[in-house]
Amino acid sequence: MHHEQASPTVQKRVLDSFDRQGLMSHLGARLTHIGPGRVHIVLPARPQVTQQHGNVHAGATSAIADSAGGYAALTLFGEESEVLTVEYKINLLAPAAGDHLEAIGTVLKSGRTLTVCQFEVYGVQADGSRKLVANGQQTLIRANRPAE
Amino acid sequence: MHHEQASPTVQKRVLDSFDRQGLMSHLGARLTHIGPGRVHIVLPARPQVTQQHGNVHAGATSAIADSAGGYAALTLFGEESEVLTVEYKINLLAPAAGDHLEAIGTVLKSGRTLTVCQFEVYGVQADGSRKLVANGQQTLIRANRPAE
Amino acid sequence: MHHEQASPTVQKRVLDSFDRQGLMSHLGARLTHIGPGRVHIVLPARPQVTQQHGNVHAGATSAIADSAGGYAALTLFGEESEVLTVEYKINLLAPAAGDHLEAIGTVLKSGRTLTVCQFEVYGVQADGSRKLVANGQQTLIRANRPAE
Amino acid sequence: MHHEQASPTVQKRVLDSFDRQGLMSHLGARLTHIGPGRVHIVLPARPQVTQQHGNVHAGATSAIADSAGGYAALTLFGEESEVLTVEYKINLLAPAAGDHLEAIGTVLKSGRTLTVCQFEVYGVQADGSRKLVANGQQTLIRANRPAE
Repeated sequence: MHHEQASPTVQKRVLDSFDRQGLMSHLGARLTHIGPGRVHIVLPARPQVTQQHGNVHAGATSAIADSAGGYAALTLFGEESEVLTVEYKINLLAPAAGDHLEAIGTVLKSGRTLTVCQFEVYGVQADGSRKLVANGQQTLIRANRPAE
Repeated sequence: MHHEQASPTVQKRVLDSFDRQGLMSHLGARLTHIGPGRVHIVLPARPQVTQQHGNVHAGATSAIADSAGGYAALTLFGEESEVLTVEYKINLLAPAAGDHLEAIGTVLKSGRTLTVCQFEVYGVQADGSRKLVANGQQTLIRANRPAE
Repeated sequence: MHHEQASPTVQKRVLDSFDRQGLMSHLGARLTHIGPGRVHIVLPARPQVTQQHGNVHAGATSAIADSAGGYAALTLFGEESEVLTVEYKINLLAPAAGDHLEAIGTVLKSGRTLTVCQFEVYGVQADGSRKLVANGQQTLIRANRPAE
Repeated sequence: MHHEQASPTVQKRVLDSFDRQGLMSHLGARLTHIGPGRVHIVLPARPQVTQQHGNVHAGATSAIADSAGGYAALTLFGEESEVLTVEYKINLLAPAAGDHLEAIGTVLKSGRTLTVCQFEVYGVQADGSRKLVANGQQTLIRANRPAE
């Protein structure tokens, strides 16, 4: 993968936040790329994340897509900021099948208050072949990070 | 709760499908009402479903909302049919806090091919007080259930 | 109609803004109700607003829905504020046919920065019978009104 | 512009349908590119299409975006088919200002029943400089064209 990496400071900030998301570890998701305005999250297709036909549930697909978009937005702000999802829309384009899913969140427009992201989710087979299984658009709001 | 119940046949069909959704049991979600065109799903707010601030993750909120809408749609079809989510849009209105979340999916329009649902998700405190935390709209498509 | 009316000051503010929307008068739309958190806009089904089958175009349906939501949001703010649409999602549920359309925008959640509205659009026949033809959800942002 | 053109037959079909959309001519919109899975529509920024601040109204922006996506979908079907918008979601990213708007609709996934498109709308200044002002995603359904 040849995407630009975010600075070590930003990477650490994103990783720390990700590690505090109980849902991500419970689902088995992991961060695989943190670039400026672009984040990848991978979700292995285990039985714990399926819907009734054995494909990945739209809710699990959405969860990694939402997190990928949110962290993509976060990479463009300083440490005093955090971002919250205002809303998103997702189209489920094909059964979410494969060895694992890869969600790619990308910032489309980063404003002072609002950020708009796009995300794509691919179903990736064990041989590396990929298929777009979901696609969406997300609005986030910047907030001041509470002092710790 | 005084909402009308679906027929036992429909209830069984929905419960059987729900039980095959690995994600729902992994998240700890359970069906609490199956009415004609209306389904409720409850999700206890455990650490396994949180985002970085300890509230329920938008992905978990979306997962029960999507399932509630999908099963609400399914209650209006015969056993030869199943429904798949085409797309949905969700607004996260407030931090998803509380003892548990309750997602309520309702059919707005049931057509031959497409069904449109609305869903609301409430954060419910241990004392029973409720707050709307998310709200959205979903499009589903009917498909023939594969013979087993 | 027995919906509560907004104060005369608020009504005047909404009407003045509406009158400055070149699109609304060009389409032939008019405000028919201004209540606190709720606005109705009517659009006569003239040939100038049709799509290729003679029904009202989704763009015209959306235009009055977006304005109805936006003005519903505006009724809840003081004169120093204005609102801008961040995004919306609309489902076209049925052909937008009838003598006229009526869009009803309602505030779901009014926050300091963001407001979330819902809107419904009905096709209304000359005999007064009504059918839901579109339905959606909208996010708006409050801004300070520029001094004039 | 170096985008691939659709076949003359497809171009004629799209143009004929566009000419029957009363709204498009009433708004002053015109088709400027018809390629396979990709359609451009231009809207001059006249006073008739404005909102209260003199920018293009979100409803007019949406109207050309919706039509661009719809016709992009239509280019991929035979003459026995037509497409109807099921739903769309649009983010208004910046004030829709400029000499004219250009909406670009692109097919993301074309299925037997459903097509998913993306659209972007640019504000274009008289000097040709461009800014992305809106962006969205749309679901359409194929229907059999009624015999004439």
